[in-house]
Amino acid sequence: MDKLIVIKIGGNIIDDDAKLALFLKSFAALNEKKILIHGGGKLATRLAAQLNIQQQLVDGRRITDAETLKIVTMVYTGAINKNIVAQLQSEKCNAIGISGADGNAIVAHKRKHATIDFGFVGDVDSVNTSFLQSLIENNICPIVAPITHDGKGQLLNTNADTIAQEIAKALSKIYRVTLIYSFEKAGVLLDTEKEDSVIPVLTPSKYEELRSKGKIFAGMIPKLDNAFAALKQGVNKVIIGQAENLATLISGKSGTSIINE
Amino acid sequence: MDKLIVIKIGGNIIDDDAKLALFLKSFAALNEKKILIHGGGKLATRLAAQLNIQQQLVDGRRITDAETLKIVTMVYTGAINKNIVAQLQSEKCNAIGISGADGNAIVAHKRKHATIDFGFVGDVDSVNTSFLQSLIENNICPIVAPITHDGKGQLLNTNADTIAQEIAKALSKIYRVTLIYSFEKAGVLLDTEKEDSVIPVLTPSKYEELRSKGKIFAGMIPKLDNAFAALKQGVNKVIIGQAENLATLISGKSGTSIINE
Repeated sequence: MDKLIVIKIGGNIIDDDAKLALFLKSFAALNEKKILIHGGGKLATRLAAQLNIQQQLVDGRRITDAETLKIVTMVYTGAINKNIVAQLQSEKCNAIGISGADGNAIVAHKRKHATIDFGFVGDVDSVNTSFLQSLIENNICPIVAPITHDGKGQLLNTNADTIAQEIAKALSKIYRVTLIYSFEKAGVLLDTEKEDSVIPVLTPSKYEELRSKGKIFAGMIPKLDNAFAALKQGVNKVIIGQAENLATLISGKSGTSIINE
Repeated sequence: MDKLIVIKIGGNIIDDDAKLALFLKSFAALNEKKILIHGGGKLATRLAAQLNIQQQLVDGRRITDAETLKIVTMVYTGAINKNIVAQLQSEKCNAIGISGADGNAIVAHKRKHATIDFGFVGDVDSVNTSFLQSLIENNICPIVAPITHDGKGQLLNTNADTIAQEIAKALSKIYRVTLIYSFEKAGVLLDTEKEDSVIPVLTPSKYEELRSKGKIFAGMIPKLDNAFAALKQGVNKVIIGQAENLATLISGKSGTSIINE
């Protein structure tokens, strides 16, 4: 099986032009087959404020109404995605920017919830592995914006972490997949105050041990549970760390590698 | 050579949800290989006004400054492009939305002009025919937004009519291309007041004859000169007419077909 690197970058990189340029340079330089998934950043919130579109929150959860869907579609698949693609092209990485609607890449359904109507938020049903594979095998690098569709003409706002995980899991049938989550901190820390306390390797037993001793920061637990779930579903390795220097993350010289025993 | 239909739709269809839905239905139903190029419509102008971004005009020509480029990128490659793709997917047409940066599809350069700085406006240098061909041959239908790139990381605003023509000319080396320009009127009219005065077929000699008699409306002359230039450069046929019913346009039952003798 060929190796495939699936990388998710979030707002902390997207909102910082210099960080983003550095990241894209190191991404373009990777020789492995690769896919990039990007989140949203602050641009959508700023644009919504400028247009006086109120952010609706229900029980602290953000709702994607019709107007907000228009904004996030424009910002994620337009502004952010196309600028990343143009920058990667200038670094000789043959990128193509897609949403889940393009090539029917990711089908989702409108979230169902007993008490909250999340609006146009999508939960992923399926990933079109043959489409992504055909791009990758033609040396075209997919850059995925966090917008999916329901197959009936409706675009849906979908969490970028989830998209990265679903793509990584689905493509594990074809490739040996490393899933990288870019992160504000240097990795999973033993002491959240100390950036140099990165845990280099986490296996399920090591995770259980640290967790039972209360040494895993509560906010990391859902992220790590997701990472171990991805391993169970075929992903070879999950890496959490700062993505500015991808090469050291991938080689295990920085960040936290989450692997099976 | 296989037949390929290259269709350009403009603002008159994009701004009208019902017209657009009808058009996309008939586009999806076409059995031929096909590419769609869409223009902008009024959404970009409206968004710029809401954000208090002044439209700059120099000698009556619109200038694309940095703020305007952000707006048109979001609207063309985000809002309009992804909604068209999602609608086509719901009609079982496997569409993929691209700008000129995606897959390095269309490289352009910033327009040079002796007296006017048009800002981030691009004139087309080259079309990546092998990329477009590989999509088409995999039954993936390209939906092209009128944004190109310069290969050095800069996105550029580019006229959709020009993109349609450049794509049609470039792909004429591989396919027998019909280029369709959607139009407000039923076709090229002998009498601009009479919608039923459509000229069904225009050849170079017929065009010269009508033109010398002053029977061609001045506003149509640049469009028709472009159409005949496209024929000279390998395009098999150019059709101008209302695109709501594509089937009758393609069969020659409506619109004006522009062909060599």
